[in-house]
Amino acid sequence: MTTALVLDLLGTFAFALNGALTAVRAARLDIVGVVVLGMITALGGGILRDILLGALPPATFSDWRYLVVAAAGGLVAFALSRQLERLARSITVFDALGLSLFAVTGAARAVELGAGVGQAVLLGTITAVGGGTLRDVLVRRVPSVLSSELYAIPALVGAAFVVIPARFGAGGLLWVFVGAGACLVIRLLGVGFRIDAPRPPGGGSAP
Amino acid sequence: MTTALVLDLLGTFAFALNGALTAVRAARLDIVGVVVLGMITALGGGILRDILLGALPPATFSDWRYLVVAAAGGLVAFALSRQLERLARSITVFDALGLSLFAVTGAARAVELGAGVGQAVLLGTITAVGGGTLRDVLVRRVPSVLSSELYAIPALVGAAFVVIPARFGAGGLLWVFVGAGACLVIRLLGVGFRIDAPRPPGGGSAP
Amino acid sequence: MTTALVLDLLGTFAFALNGALTAVRAARLDIVGVVVLGMITALGGGILRDILLGALPPATFSDWRYLVVAAAGGLVAFALSRQLERLARSITVFDALGLSLFAVTGAARAVELGAGVGQAVLLGTITAVGGGTLRDVLVRRVPSVLSSELYAIPALVGAAFVVIPARFGAGGLLWVFVGAGACLVIRLLGVGFRIDAPRPPGGGSAP
Repeated sequence: MTTALVLDLLGTFAFALNGALTAVRAARLDIVGVVVLGMITALGGGILRDILLGALPPATFSDWRYLVVAAAGGLVAFALSRQLERLARSITVFDALGLSLFAVTGAARAVELGAGVGQAVLLGTITAVGGGTLRDVLVRRVPSVLSSELYAIPALVGAAFVVIPARFGAGGLLWVFVGAGACLVIRLLGVGFRIDAPRPPGGGSAP
Repeated sequence: MTTALVLDLLGTFAFALNGALTAVRAARLDIVGVVVLGMITALGGGILRDILLGALPPATFSDWRYLVVAAAGGLVAFALSRQLERLARSITVFDALGLSLFAVTGAARAVELGAGVGQAVLLGTITAVGGGTLRDVLVRRVPSVLSSELYAIPALVGAAFVVIPARFGAGGLLWVFVGAGACLVIRLLGVGFRIDAPRPPGGGSAP
Repeated sequence: MTTALVLDLLGTFAFALNGALTAVRAARLDIVGVVVLGMITALGGGILRDILLGALPPATFSDWRYLVVAAAGGLVAFALSRQLERLARSITVFDALGLSLFAVTGAARAVELGAGVGQAVLLGTITAVGGGTLRDVLVRRVPSVLSSELYAIPALVGAAFVVIPARFGAGGLLWVFVGAGACLVIRLLGVGFRIDAPRPPGGGSAP
């Protein structure tokens, strides 16, 4: 099992926990809804990436390990929802972890399949934000990628740390960890200090 | 015309009626909205299945019979909306019929295209619940698959009745009918008795 | 650069402006949200079309010109949002322009890739309405294609003007302009006079 796969499965597990806890907290769903939302959050980004790469069937669906890890994350979150909720901000942390891991693994996969630089950075970002966007649409929230403190930007940065060195023939595992770390730090700072990207000059009067 | 195709077109018609009636009742749409929502409800599940199978262009889009049957269902529901609404629960019954038929035909198609056992059961389920999920997102409801009494579970059961015998070389039309029947019965019992799957220990205080 | 590509990029720019202005006005998003919504509105229809055609990776994603034009449209709308909002109905006009251009270019691409007549007309329509539908779902509005005065119908008409002559061997640039013009006129008349398609006999009591 390669390091990339391990990181990808870790991201899958983190997003499954996050999606399932969202289902418990935001929408009070039953066990099926909890596991389904966990799985969609965990697998959605990779599926969108593989559709845009034309690499069908998507790896995250055809490889049973992703399905099992995603379902397990959903079930764990269901069983331990009371404990996990007590951990302050655990939903946010799992989301930030998934975001960081998927930004770099998604970008690495796009590079591997021959996408251009701009496309590979975007695909890393889409892998990272895609599952959470589907989650938000399904529970009827405005998606984090549109509304939240620094959500797409850390993913873009993380993906760029993987794609740009690879473009110059200097790719490697080091950059994967640097990229994921940078994404995680920026995202958590964004949440902690409620930093937003600039708002438009006209419309930003009041939220 | 094979039996599988007939069942698939019946499911398409049932979901088109359901989606179009939802458009009439829940959202008071005009004729275009009614037919569009009927067609998306009818064709969405099969399109999602074929994307995940990598079998593009999707059969339900490239084969004109699906398009015609879906459009016809939408138009019939538009024309007869007053009569169909009087029939108590007709929306629910059409939905349950589409769910049952698509669970088995979707699973059969996944097996035919060489999907693994787990994937084939999931693909049957996704075919069954996919169109209704798109319908609910478009009219801004929390999707049935997340919130409703037993919605994904009967589809899973129906799909399993098709996939597991096929795995042991004993597939056949009998199991298709058994699977669809089992799905229909469980779904209608779920609706009739308002049976929910278990709720999480923490969050289930009040709806 | 072919005429078709120019028209397609113009449509991309118009939809990017529209999506970004929607983000500014309807949802008061920050710069990331504005650009992301602009890009999804601009690129979504073409991506849906190419998925349904099985032509992956989608042209609008793999060709960097679409990405650049879409991002530029989003940034321009962000920078000039105050000025653009003052222009009465500019959101509506950009939407109608994108709708008209994508209806004909989408239909032309479908014909080129060998889709049947009905499918090609539908694919032109889906290209035209797809991005706006994703936009509306993301900002939690009932999609225009379901609810609005004449939205899908002008796109259908525009696409038909391209597909039907091509079917009889008489395709060409003339029909592309006629189709786009017809779509634009019908759409703007629909908006101007608040013309709706017929409502169902039963449910149309009150909005």
